[in-house]
Amino acid sequence: MTQLGLPVPPGFTLSTEVCTFFYQNQRAYPKQLETQVKKALTRMEKLMGRRFGHKKSPLLVSVRSGARASMPGMMDTVLNLGLNDETVEGLCQESGDVRFSYDSYRRFISMYSDVVLDVHSHHFEAALEELKSERGIDLDTDLTGEDLKLLVKRFKHIVRAEGKQFPEDPWEQLWGAIGAVFGSWMNTRAVTYRKLNDIPDHWGTAVNIQSMVFGNMGNDCATGVAFTRDPSTGERKFFGEFLMNAQGEDVVAGTRTPQPINSSSRHASTEKLQTLEEAMPRAYRDLVKVYQKLEKHYRDMQDIEFTIERGKLYMLQTRSGKRTAAASLRIAVDMVKERLISKEEAILRIRPEQLDQLLHPGLDPEAKKNVIAKGLPASPGAASGFAVFDPNTAEQWAAMGKKVILVRLETSPEDIHGMSVAQGILTARGGMTSHAAVVARGMGKSCVSGCSSIKVSEERREFTAGPHSIQEGDLITLDGSSGEVILGQVPTVSPALNQNFVELMKWVDEVRQLRVRTNADTPQDTRVARGFGAEGIGLCRTEHMFFDPSRIDAVRMMILADTSEGRRQALDQILPMQKGDFKEIFREMKGMPVTIRLLDPPLHEFIPHQDAELQILAQKIGVTLDRLKRKAESLHEFNPMLGHRGCRLGVSYPEIYRTQVRAILEAACELVRDEGFSIVPEIMIPLVGDWRELKFIREYCIEEIEEILDSFREDFKKQGIKKLQYLIGTMIEIPRAALTSAEIAKHASFFSFGTNDLTQTTFGLSRDDSASFLGDYINAKIYEKDPFATLDPLGVGRLMKLSINEGRTSRPDLKVGICGEHGGEPQSVIFCHSIGLDYVSCSPYRVPIAKLAAAQAAIQNPRAKKTQKKGIKPPARKRTQAKRKN
Amino acid sequence: MTQLGLPVPPGFTLSTEVCTFFYQNQRAYPKQLETQVKKALTRMEKLMGRRFGHKKSPLLVSVRSGARASMPGMMDTVLNLGLNDETVEGLCQESGDVRFSYDSYRRFISMYSDVVLDVHSHHFEAALEELKSERGIDLDTDLTGEDLKLLVKRFKHIVRAEGKQFPEDPWEQLWGAIGAVFGSWMNTRAVTYRKLNDIPDHWGTAVNIQSMVFGNMGNDCATGVAFTRDPSTGERKFFGEFLMNAQGEDVVAGTRTPQPINSSSRHASTEKLQTLEEAMPRAYRDLVKVYQKLEKHYRDMQDIEFTIERGKLYMLQTRSGKRTAAASLRIAVDMVKERLISKEEAILRIRPEQLDQLLHPGLDPEAKKNVIAKGLPASPGAASGFAVFDPNTAEQWAAMGKKVILVRLETSPEDIHGMSVAQGILTARGGMTSHAAVVARGMGKSCVSGCSSIKVSEERREFTAGPHSIQEGDLITLDGSSGEVILGQVPTVSPALNQNFVELMKWVDEVRQLRVRTNADTPQDTRVARGFGAEGIGLCRTEHMFFDPSRIDAVRMMILADTSEGRRQALDQILPMQKGDFKEIFREMKGMPVTIRLLDPPLHEFIPHQDAELQILAQKIGVTLDRLKRKAESLHEFNPMLGHRGCRLGVSYPEIYRTQVRAILEAACELVRDEGFSIVPEIMIPLVGDWRELKFIREYCIEEIEEILDSFREDFKKQGIKKLQYLIGTMIEIPRAALTSAEIAKHASFFSFGTNDLTQTTFGLSRDDSASFLGDYINAKIYEKDPFATLDPLGVGRLMKLSINEGRTSRPDLKVGICGEHGGEPQSVIFCHSIGLDYVSCSPYRVPIAKLAAAQAAIQNPRAKKTQKKGIKPPARKRTQAKRKN
Repeated sequence: MTQLGLPVPPGFTLSTEVCTFFYQNQRAYPKQLETQVKKALTRMEKLMGRRFGHKKSPLLVSVRSGARASMPGMMDTVLNLGLNDETVEGLCQESGDVRFSYDSYRRFISMYSDVVLDVHSHHFEAALEELKSERGIDLDTDLTGEDLKLLVKRFKHIVRAEGKQFPEDPWEQLWGAIGAVFGSWMNTRAVTYRKLNDIPDHWGTAVNIQSMVFGNMGNDCATGVAFTRDPSTGERKFFGEFLMNAQGEDVVAGTRTPQPINSSSRHASTEKLQTLEEAMPRAYRDLVKVYQKLEKHYRDMQDIEFTIERGKLYMLQTRSGKRTAAASLRIAVDMVKERLISKEEAILRIRPEQLDQLLHPGLDPEAKKNVIAKGLPASPGAASGFAVFDPNTAEQWAAMGKKVILVRLETSPEDIHGMSVAQGILTARGGMTSHAAVVARGMGKSCVSGCSSIKVSEERREFTAGPHSIQEGDLITLDGSSGEVILGQVPTVSPALNQNFVELMKWVDEVRQLRVRTNADTPQDTRVARGFGAEGIGLCRTEHMFFDPSRIDAVRMMILADTSEGRRQALDQILPMQKGDFKEIFREMKGMPVTIRLLDPPLHEFIPHQDAELQILAQKIGVTLDRLKRKAESLHEFNPMLGHRGCRLGVSYPEIYRTQVRAILEAACELVRDEGFSIVPEIMIPLVGDWRELKFIREYCIEEIEEILDSFREDFKKQGIKKLQYLIGTMIEIPRAALTSAEIAKHASFFSFGTNDLTQTTFGLSRDDSASFLGDYINAKIYEKDPFATLDPLGVGRLMKLSINEGRTSRPDLKVGICGEHGGEPQSVIFCHSIGLDYVSCSPYRVPIAKLAAAQAAIQNPRAKKTQKKGIKPPARKRTQAKRKN
Repeated sequence: MTQLGLPVPPGFTLSTEVCTFFYQNQRAYPKQLETQVKKALTRMEKLMGRRFGHKKSPLLVSVRSGARASMPGMMDTVLNLGLNDETVEGLCQESGDVRFSYDSYRRFISMYSDVVLDVHSHHFEAALEELKSERGIDLDTDLTGEDLKLLVKRFKHIVRAEGKQFPEDPWEQLWGAIGAVFGSWMNTRAVTYRKLNDIPDHWGTAVNIQSMVFGNMGNDCATGVAFTRDPSTGERKFFGEFLMNAQGEDVVAGTRTPQPINSSSRHASTEKLQTLEEAMPRAYRDLVKVYQKLEKHYRDMQDIEFTIERGKLYMLQTRSGKRTAAASLRIAVDMVKERLISKEEAILRIRPEQLDQLLHPGLDPEAKKNVIAKGLPASPGAASGFAVFDPNTAEQWAAMGKKVILVRLETSPEDIHGMSVAQGILTARGGMTSHAAVVARGMGKSCVSGCSSIKVSEERREFTAGPHSIQEGDLITLDGSSGEVILGQVPTVSPALNQNFVELMKWVDEVRQLRVRTNADTPQDTRVARGFGAEGIGLCRTEHMFFDPSRIDAVRMMILADTSEGRRQALDQILPMQKGDFKEIFREMKGMPVTIRLLDPPLHEFIPHQDAELQILAQKIGVTLDRLKRKAESLHEFNPMLGHRGCRLGVSYPEIYRTQVRAILEAACELVRDEGFSIVPEIMIPLVGDWRELKFIREYCIEEIEEILDSFREDFKKQGIKKLQYLIGTMIEIPRAALTSAEIAKHASFFSFGTNDLTQTTFGLSRDDSASFLGDYINAKIYEKDPFATLDPLGVGRLMKLSINEGRTSRPDLKVGICGEHGGEPQSVIFCHSIGLDYVSCSPYRVPIAKLAAAQAAIQNPRAKKTQKKGIKPPARKRTQAKRKN
């Protein structure tokens, strides 16, 4: 700001390098620092015409932190430094204001003692309150200069009583404050804030030493904060508040109601207060000029702090202002229209995660809430409903029009029908990529998972959270964006996908090089995803279709059959139903690519666990309970994740995959023939670990497919339709598949990285079990991030890179995508862009997020290779850096 | 043999390249083949003075397979080819023997029709029997020439009745036979044999076409087989049998009792028969000269086939003879002493797996056995005992002096006490590396695992195998080398580790470059392993010590404690006991390196599963059953293999590892101080996946260690002992550890590959669950070998290579070993040698096997880098190729 010619009190900065040195050398400073500080202070003294520690005309300074990223309120600040029993008298004489001078002094003593000497501020607050009650007054401002002199004495007494010594020497004060500010980089608040906001610890903070200016020197003084645009809505209006005769901390403390700076900053409760524009028109006019200059200069909405000392405006701080997602979007789009920033810059301005706020309903921020537990924010959005503890009750109550929250120890595929009708899902176990979390995100439903502080008893239909006991039918609310579980119902607000969103996504589509598909298993999912601009389906799981109540019996008969023939018969019942599903999905995707994964989960997931259910099943399918139990037992596995699932089922029971392939191909052929669609089905074989596995399955699939294509040949010929094309590819989700990709690619038209399982196997870490100890890992700083949430570049990512490179040596046109949960996580999407994937696939509600991340990646690190998609312009070559300032 | 100047009937060979061409070109031949065959046959005609298909002096040939590796009896052969209705008459005139000629003809027709025309031989056998019964005779040799003429007619009739045409044209016969022999490379028998003997399918077979000589032309003719040394014992004596007036197939058919070739080949039942030496002394002398020449030439024991035609000896075949393990060893050692082969060659002569036969007791090969089921040959050796179904009964019965076989669905660490007293272990589930298999191999006990055809009911204390029901107390026998489960008791024979074994191992130790350590958890194991020449302990698991009945309660209290302090108290009880264990093991290893792995299994393994046991435990430790059950439930995991185990325990509960480290260090320090040992304990941290994990644990371990070393400082100083050295290293057993080895090596003094878990995670395959479908994989030829038995070089091996290379870039002196089950499997040991490991570690009984494999690897592919071990000579630089012939 100084360089812009704006009125800034003189000062200087100890850079972050000093902070780094400080922490690497047992809190010592570089040798030359002392000399440099002295020199800089001398320059300040000259500019201000005052001297540091001078009896008559003392220079007072503030000592503040200054980090690369804004960390509001997280670190320490000391104001009014330089005051002592002598200089305070100088200040009295100079200002002619004993009250102001001793007010500044007592503030300094308490702030300094708190921050530097570790004497807790409540001691000083208590003394202040005591004095006020002695004087019989309510407001601090009613204390006289003499009162404050007394208070200073009492404050100093407190410091001594706590065994500390308040330094009278301004230099000692200064070095104490510098040490404290550097030290505050590592205080608990700051560390936590950085963890939450992905700010690296090693960045360190700078320390700013600046001349004090005073907003508390009388009624021609003021201090305030303002935003250059509305941080809630993004509307282009100057917006802020101020206090007369006050220092910055008074605005924060909230003891006096701040006044609006102008009429457009007024709201109901400040309707009658005088504005800065009215009270100090000249200073206000200066402020307007400054804010316009600042916004133009930084080309972003600014959050500014100012002080007016005896009518003269001083700027204390400016930084890019925090804003809501909606404001973020509006400001970015408006600024492009105002030709302040380019489209690329606009794209880089929005944090992809922020879009989540716009895509899901949220809790009304004004509402009160009684939070009784906190779990993982597994699927965003807020939801209220009656607690139910099993999927059947969920379904019954929902059928009666009741909104329900499904509460489970953990969910399993058998719970799908209950999940699909619930408003939200709460589980005691499981992580960010547990079954509940994945399914809920896919459905765009609120979910709090791994809420280990609640004790769920499905049997007794209740859960407890501390002293609270919630029974079936009690109202609860989930905030899937924060992980909060709230007693009772909290009002929610709907998302508003406005014109700004549409505009931004248009620009995003122009620049990104990654295609974005969706993971969708049902026509409903597909519709939602299309609405969000998905360009195909990257993962259509077929097992969810098996759980449909109308089919599950046939599925179970298939599993319990002892012969290939018996399985075939049961599968014949499932075939027409699956074909129907596929037809609906193909219709919905209107010719866009659809990748269908053949059956993946271990068969025991389809068999009920409870005796009662087994009894019913035994009767239904006509076997003895004993036999059924034996079969169920024989399917039991110690580590089902590593068991008889995925393509291993396809090796043992080819008839299952044959039936699925038949359903897919018949669905496609019939649509092509009867409804004029153009479809290229992509069949995906899961859990491959060896090329022979893939070859074995691929060969019998092709045999089945060619038989079907033959049966349609005549019909196609009549209509002049060419033979249907299809692709057979594989998932790369176990390390050995990645390590042998050169061979596997010879038998696969495409790869799709299943990074959920690839993360599990590469880390040797079960996502369903890791919740219990992942906290220990984050605390010990072993993992910076949950590897199931953000793709691990060193292990999993390295395997992906190797797989792509070696796969493409065998098959240069190998199509490569990702369909794990990471496909919708911005940092992971950027990684996927960098290693040359063709597309990412994610749950419908994350499609816009993935698109935005992909666009940002393409702007910051454009790839040489053009995607084949038409209508996408080549990326801007110029590396447009986002200007991110505090 | 021809080149040696031995009497071999002239002939020529179609090489294996023709076989490869044949299978790559829909069973067609190279263009030039026909001309070449004609040319070769013309040369044979000249040498023999006969012509192929000639009416008067017909040349007859045999057509036989000839593969790179011997596959006795697996492929097809046609003898007497060239006979037809015309040439048989020529043969009659030439030989003057109608009986012989038509006998040859009828043999040819049946053999040819069976092999080439696919007319099953039982038709011909039936016709032969019928004729004999018509004539009222018993022996084939009693049939007259006229009878055989009639038989030839009937044989031809059979061929026509089966819709086939017997070709009269000798050339058509020849090409038919060639095609059949090539075709027999892919018959089921041959494919199975190759699978069992690790012979690659792509090798293919050659076809040998050779002039017939006749052992059945009268009583001056004979045919026989002989071994140049005794194939059972290896004794140096000429050993064989023969038949007068017979063709080779008669020896095999067993219709006549063969006679001994000399007196030293006689045994009880052949005591009275005339020897070849007696019957044809000249031919016998020739044969002796030939066998001596052959053995000297091939420098190995030969298995030879010969025919004597009218007093003249012809050699038909020679190949290295099959032999028992004991013979193998004796022959190799003897031949070195006879200066026939070098020590290196002797080493290469023994198949490492063969040693297994010598190290474990085996079933008496003479005994009858009633095999009722077959499982996996999980741990070699034979054992008989009474079936028991739980470890406690095993212990009680064993205490009463009864031999027991422990039968379980599967075993768990809680069963250890029962396993350790059992003669053998039989499980219905689990693979070659299941708990039962691994522990049994470690104990050198017989084990049959994954015996899925038996149904075990632990509750009813019985198992069924087909129609058999075996109750507690019934006698059964296991053959852990074949996987057989046998009803009743079968006598066993003990292993004999003789001087030959000791001699060979001495040579092995001289040449190998890999060190061989053992996996041993107890002083007993350690003693056994030392006896077999282990050079240290590569894996000492500490969890087995936790299961000791005297400690398990303290362990359980530790697990159930809610605070770090509570855990510490329980651990304090365990500390002195573990220290005692370590002392014993250190003493036993006498200063050799001992690598101790800190606690690895998930804690729930230590908690009982049954309500009754839980009830007892609850009372013992003074908590309610309900609380105990809740705790047990909270420890439950979906995929325990990927759960809260290994170093993850060390992250969550540092006090566990601290206690273990204390026990190790105090044990070492006390032995050094009190008993003059020199010990460098190696502490191994399991399941590391990230360097930060290792650093975190390593740091607190060092803190604990330095505290202990401080407490011994004074004592050491007094005795002039230097400060104890120690190493802290890690297991590499999950892919991410391998992929980030460069970073991990900075915090590890050594790596030890845990290839059991590394195989599980790299393949995404649970070894406990894969038994149920691994069969499908072997059948579909997807896996050639069980990856848990033989190290997978493409996936797991690639990760190992990468890990070593990158680990050593950070730490050039990184010590690297392997402690998975693969460390004792010869092919895997060879791989470990090739990628630069310093040592392998395996169960005690596999130490000699690993040493032998390591020596073979060093001979065939010596490494540049010398091992640091003293007393090991640098390897022979000369690449001595093993001469392996049929």
